[in-house]
Amino acid sequence: MKQKRVVVLGSTGSIGRNVLRVIESFPNRFAVIGLGANRSVEVLAEQVRQHRPRAVSVGDPHRVPELKRLIRDVDATIFAGESGLTELATMDDVDILVTAVVGAVGLDPVLKALERGIRVAVANKEPLVMAGKIVMETAKRHAAELLPIDSEHSAVFQCLNRADTSSVRKVVLTASGGPFYGKPKQELSTVTPEQALAHPTWCMGPKVSVDSATLMNKGLEVIEAMWLFGVDVDRIDVLIHPQSAVHSLVEYVDGSTIAQIASPDMKLPIQYALTYPERLPTPFKTAALADIGGLTFERITRGTFPCLDYAYDAARRKGTMPAALNAANEVAVEAFLKRELPFLGIPEVIRRVLGKHENKIEPSLEDVKEADRMARILAATAISDLRQKG
Amino acid sequence: MKQKRVVVLGSTGSIGRNVLRVIESFPNRFAVIGLGANRSVEVLAEQVRQHRPRAVSVGDPHRVPELKRLIRDVDATIFAGESGLTELATMDDVDILVTAVVGAVGLDPVLKALERGIRVAVANKEPLVMAGKIVMETAKRHAAELLPIDSEHSAVFQCLNRADTSSVRKVVLTASGGPFYGKPKQELSTVTPEQALAHPTWCMGPKVSVDSATLMNKGLEVIEAMWLFGVDVDRIDVLIHPQSAVHSLVEYVDGSTIAQIASPDMKLPIQYALTYPERLPTPFKTAALADIGGLTFERITRGTFPCLDYAYDAARRKGTMPAALNAANEVAVEAFLKRELPFLGIPEVIRRVLGKHENKIEPSLEDVKEADRMARILAATAISDLRQKG
Repeated sequence: MKQKRVVVLGSTGSIGRNVLRVIESFPNRFAVIGLGANRSVEVLAEQVRQHRPRAVSVGDPHRVPELKRLIRDVDATIFAGESGLTELATMDDVDILVTAVVGAVGLDPVLKALERGIRVAVANKEPLVMAGKIVMETAKRHAAELLPIDSEHSAVFQCLNRADTSSVRKVVLTASGGPFYGKPKQELSTVTPEQALAHPTWCMGPKVSVDSATLMNKGLEVIEAMWLFGVDVDRIDVLIHPQSAVHSLVEYVDGSTIAQIASPDMKLPIQYALTYPERLPTPFKTAALADIGGLTFERITRGTFPCLDYAYDAARRKGTMPAALNAANEVAVEAFLKRELPFLGIPEVIRRVLGKHENKIEPSLEDVKEADRMARILAATAISDLRQKG
Repeated sequence: MKQKRVVVLGSTGSIGRNVLRVIESFPNRFAVIGLGANRSVEVLAEQVRQHRPRAVSVGDPHRVPELKRLIRDVDATIFAGESGLTELATMDDVDILVTAVVGAVGLDPVLKALERGIRVAVANKEPLVMAGKIVMETAKRHAAELLPIDSEHSAVFQCLNRADTSSVRKVVLTASGGPFYGKPKQELSTVTPEQALAHPTWCMGPKVSVDSATLMNKGLEVIEAMWLFGVDVDRIDVLIHPQSAVHSLVEYVDGSTIAQIASPDMKLPIQYALTYPERLPTPFKTAALADIGGLTFERITRGTFPCLDYAYDAARRKGTMPAALNAANEVAVEAFLKRELPFLGIPEVIRRVLGKHENKIEPSLEDVKEADRMARILAATAISDLRQKG
């Protein structure tokens, strides 16, 4: 069997490292031909020495000399900056692009890869959240496969299994509820970044951990699912499931529900996105259902998690609203992690930004990016206002 | 859309009546052209008046005059006896045969229908348990669809969704555990038919209820699943799941498990078998996962349910062993229901019969039927021996 040539963007992050672990487990199936990272040049250099990609890219151009020095004995083209990721994605002979970068920088490489008909496995939410309609239309136009890596979307993808969405009653995304589920609101006002980063079931990066605590993570997933599976947002539900064993479900109109269950290990959905439609024996440890014990499911009371409500609202309004939501959230979370904003300031910043954002229906890619930029400015202003007040 | 012409065998039983309720809910989709029952001519006559089938069959030939009288104003051919079922199954223009008869009489009509390339939806276990290899080969040879109605097999069928069985690690059938799960053995020795018929989650006929209490029901399902899905019996597991919400699961080699969840209502799998591959909005009430509350799963300790162990053993030995197991069980359960055999006598009778049965590998249909006949005689002898001893 011919090896599939894979480009991994965001290879030094939590997901990216897992992608490489999966690829290392199937050396006859996959070969890494491109690696892109933002700043972690030491880790990147190590990955380059191991996988010997044809090209490599570093986000921060100032780190290029350091990377060059670290991999001087390796014959690899070095790209830099945001455009470096697109350079990697559009190299000749790429079979699969895996994007696991944080933020809006993942958008261009995804679109360019889809335009070339390349399979894209997306772990970062931004391409679909910001520009879901454009991304899906691009994939369709070029008959390119877009596969989710997020465990929830991978689950839905597996439960749907090419079913006609007209047979779907509800797509149900499960949520662990994060570290603060069930806590009274006054307790949340004093939450520290350390507390928010202690997620009960998943091991994730800081941004996603905070999003998981505010349930914005689930909100962004709802928007992603809407585009990825072509179902109306009001047919997407979120169910609290503290055990994180059932990763999502699809309820069909005939009363049958199909659920996907797996250990909370990102390597499993990553492997599926790489090998689809095949399923290969996993080399990773997985738990049996009988060992998990009881599974519980609980509805979310609307209003408990304002970030989730804002995400639903943005999803219904479509246009540039989801991009503004996402940008405002990114800025607010960063401020929270830097202790410049309290935990409950995150939804407040988003609320203010969305209140001021002028929604553009049927946006172009440039409109989306402009909405992203504007929302960041509005968010910074909101944070500064809140700090002066506090 | 053209109506599908359906023949229902065993239409007056618990499953059969549910089949008709599903058909009545989709009058534009389905038309009943044949109905077969064993003895309940009054109910059958009512069904005939409502559905106006082209032909009807009654198992007991002595009931023919009574049926004739009851439906004298209806223009329907009347067949009788075991061959009557096959007459119905092989009428012209049958699109779907649904078999929900109890016992071995379902075998011939199923094979004859498959030979004609007709879709067969099987609710009774005997065709696959007794002659699984022959049935599956017949279906394959004539490119006929064989769809399960049993909720567990329907669940597995849905979870597999045409997947290659080489990607399957385990097929896991769930079992409520029946009314006696967890009870100490000495308590079981005094179990009455009334106690055995009180199933906690499903409403079923007496034979299936007793089989559910001994877990022979699950044992027969294991044998069925082995043939239906073409997986080795040692890749089929049974998991106790008291809530009967998850009807079965498929564990894949890549660590992903797909589960099917539905309300415990036979009309749902019946509808799926009739409309497959389509899913149509169900007119029946279904429960949401959040309303079910907690789901629990527990391994079965081997030895706790001897009937299940005997079934696994017969499945491994194949040939005519499963037919002998099934026949011995039928006779033993009948004796138990007539209070001629204690509850724990059921596995004992089966043990004795299997110990004496001469297994015939690669049996013909005649061999299977002969094994059935012989096992019934052996079972009757065993029961009589046990009564004399007791």
